[in-house]
Amino acid sequence: MNIGWRIWLKKGELKIFGKGPKELLQRTEKMGSLRKAAMSMNMSYSKAWNLISNLEKALDIKILDKTIGGIDGGSSTLTQEGKALIDKYDELEKRIEEAILKIYKEVF
Amino acid sequence: MNIGWRIWLKKGELKIFGKGPKELLQRTEKMGSLRKAAMSMNMSYSKAWNLISNLEKALDIKILDKTIGGIDGGSSTLTQEGKALIDKYDELEKRIEEAILKIYKEVF
Repeated sequence: MNIGWRIWLKKGELKIFGKGPKELLQRTEKMGSLRKAAMSMNMSYSKAWNLISNLEKALDIKILDKTIGGIDGGSSTLTQEGKALIDKYDELEKRIEEAILKIYKEVF
Repeated sequence: MNIGWRIWLKKGELKIFGKGPKELLQRTEKMGSLRKAAMSMNMSYSKAWNLISNLEKALDIKILDKTIGGIDGGSSTLTQEGKALIDKYDELEKRIEEAILKIYKEVF
C-alpha cells in the first residue's frame, strides 16, 4: 500500500494553479510562446489563455510578458512575478511531498 | 489565495481508500447495512460492494462482517480491522492537513 495526493492553489472555490498550469508556464518560458506550449500539451489556446488570465486576476499580478505580432506571431516570457510563483510552488510541492510521506510512514 | 488538496491510499496505481470509501464505511457502521449506506450516498450497491471487495483484497484483511438474510435482508458491521483502518486514516488526514496548512503559510 502507498499514498497518493494532489494539491492546488485556489481562490475561493476556484482552482487557480496546480501541476498543469505550472507545466504550461514552464513550457511557455522554454518555448517562448504560450500558443506553442499549449499545443505541446494538447491544450487549446483559449483554455491556456483563460487559465493565465484567471491566475493573473486572482493574484492581481502579471504572469506573462507578451509581444504581439512579428514574423513568428508574437512571443511570451514569464515575468519576475511569474517566475517567483513557480519557484514558490516548487518549494511547496517538495516540502508537502516530504511531509506526506513522513506522516504516512508514521501512521501506517 | 488558499491551498486545496486530496489524499488517497493506493495499491500500485489502484486507488483503494479515500474520503468516499471512509464515508461509506462510517455510514455502514451507523446504519448496520452496506446497502443502506450506499443508497444514502447515491452509490449503487454493486459499486459499494466492489469498493469493499477491492479494499479487502488489496489489504488482505476483512473489513465488514456480514450476516445474510433475516427479515431485514442481512446486516453489515465493521470488523476490528475495519475500525482500525478508519482510525488510522482519520489520524493520517488530520496530521496531513496540519502539515499542509503549516507549509503553505510558510511558503506563501
